Amino acid sequence: MTSCDVLVVAGTHGNELNAPWLLEQWDRQPELIDSLGLSCRRVIGNPDARAAGTRYLDRDLNRSFQPELLAGDGQEVELRRARELLADHGPSGASPCRVALDLHSTTAGMGSSLVVYGRRPADLALAGGVQRLLGLPVYLHESDAAQTGFLVERWPCGLVIEVGPVPQGVLESRVVIQTQLALEACLQVLSEARSGLGHLPRALVVHRHLRSLDLLRDEHGQPSALLHPSLHGTDWRPLEAGAPWLRRADGTVLNLPEDAAHLTPVFINEAAYAEKRIALSLTRREVWPVLPTWMEALKELMDG
Amino acid sequence: MTSCDVLVVAGTHGNELNAPWLLEQWDRQPELIDSLGLSCRRVIGNPDARAAGTRYLDRDLNRSFQPELLAGDGQEVELRRARELLADHGPSGASPCRVALDLHSTTAGMGSSLVVYGRRPADLALAGGVQRLLGLPVYLHESDAAQTGFLVERWPCGLVIEVGPVPQGVLESRVVIQTQLALEACLQVLSEARSGLGHLPRALVVHRHLRSLDLLRDEHGQPSALLHPSLHGTDWRPLEAGAPWLRRADGTVLNLPEDAAHLTPVFINEAAYAEKRIALSLTRREVWPVLPTWMEALKELMDG
Repeated sequence: MTSCDVLVVAGTHGNELNAPWLLEQWDRQPELIDSLGLSCRRVIGNPDARAAGTRYLDRDLNRSFQPELLAGDGQEVELRRARELLADHGPSGASPCRVALDLHSTTAGMGSSLVVYGRRPADLALAGGVQRLLGLPVYLHESDAAQTGFLVERWPCGLVIEVGPVPQGVLESRVVIQTQLALEACLQVLSEARSGLGHLPRALVVHRHLRSLDLLRDEHGQPSALLHPSLHGTDWRPLEAGAPWLRRADGTVLNLPEDAAHLTPVFINEAAYAEKRIALSLTRREVWPVLPTWMEALKELMDG
Repeated sequence: MTSCDVLVVAGTHGNELNAPWLLEQWDRQPELIDSLGLSCRRVIGNPDARAAGTRYLDRDLNRSFQPELLAGDGQEVELRRARELLADHGPSGASPCRVALDLHSTTAGMGSSLVVYGRRPADLALAGGVQRLLGLPVYLHESDAAQTGFLVERWPCGLVIEVGPVPQGVLESRVVIQTQLALEACLQVLSEARSGLGHLPRALVVHRHLRSLDLLRDEHGQPSALLHPSLHGTDWRPLEAGAPWLRRADGTVLNLPEDAAHLTPVFINEAAYAEKRIALSLTRREVWPVLPTWMEALKELMDG
């Protein structure tokens, strides 16, 4: 293998089936997705977990890319796979890729969105370009010590395409179509950045991660109240002060904590986050002026 | 333990979380559900699979209640559990229950429904009574040699309460509420049958299982086309002749097989049925006159 422009990863979580299916159809039918002159490499993130039909075997692969973990002597399936992906496709690997696009799905009703980790200029350029084309919301994940080690952080540029709602273990045409559209928009932005034709909007709208909320739990750590039904599918809509928040089985309702009012929830009731004790994450909507340095960084990466 | 009226089973599939949560809340708060004078026993169907967060460990518990399998020497986790449930609570068990209610959820958009196996008069009386109270659709499962060995078949009377859509591994208030309502309706019908106050409608509307359809598959057995997005969530609505049926990744569409037209689909894209190669099941809507022998059979069972 030689170096390549874009590493397209699907099945980083083994029970998210739609992106791996799309990639395999693309393998069989190369014209399915126009790579616009970019060289693309397709990989299944966690083939062992996919074979088992589970999110992961030993630990979440998409929390395993922490430099200190990777440098340690841990031998969990996912740590070994993370090292292998970096050795093969990482920036210092055998055949490096410039950009990593990691395709995910969620059980939350978030529609199509982008997840960006931190504030690297090239990432913000890519997200801004896609927001200009498709209007997708951007979830900016940062400042959460409990959630680190994401795959795309180890490449010079990269983001997650997140599509939902879809249950784990379900193939659904709508999710495949949405994933393909977002992927094609990313490729278009990267291709235009290389050719110097990249356009960014004046402003980037981000939903910046603040913190996460858990359910109410009993003395054994089991939920004693669930999300109120009125919250179902309300990702990206600001929470109202005093709105219903949790519901016990007997119908009693707890209202939203005061400090969550007017913040915007994402990943509401994502199945995989229950074990992380995340019932939803709170974000603040911010409008950032787009800096010229962002597209310059992306162009430099694609030209280099 | 002495004998009891109703065995309420939840978590027969370990990744269906809502009914087990409801039962545990009921344990803690006995007045949560009014059992109307009936003695109810609550059990978790497959606690090992629940602890593992999977549908099952060795084999589907709710296909393990075939008499010849149970009598054999198989030692799979679920066969041992099926024998245990029957030894403890079965009609010839240590402390027999008259009726078994098995609480399930589905990823399909079916709403609340009842699943009845075969045409036992007491089952039809119970289903008819609930349909009178709540209008729930009844899926009559029979004549499918590939799908046998359901739990409730081993009790003198029993049915499945099925609620969806909800992803596997997700707790959702709406699903808990719907499960509770359907369970309470069952208890009301059973209680009224005992007291001689049972009322049935003139007719029972059933959706009788005919057969199942699979996706299109390639030479490796992998899906090469998925359900068309227009089918999503259309359970219980008759299929139109020539309607879109499957969609390939390149957007080409295959239309519905002619012999499926006007039949009614259920369990559309249920996650757990992918491994069984069931993309949906086809039913025929039928209106059956209610026979007086149905309620007589249920009353006799509850009185005996």
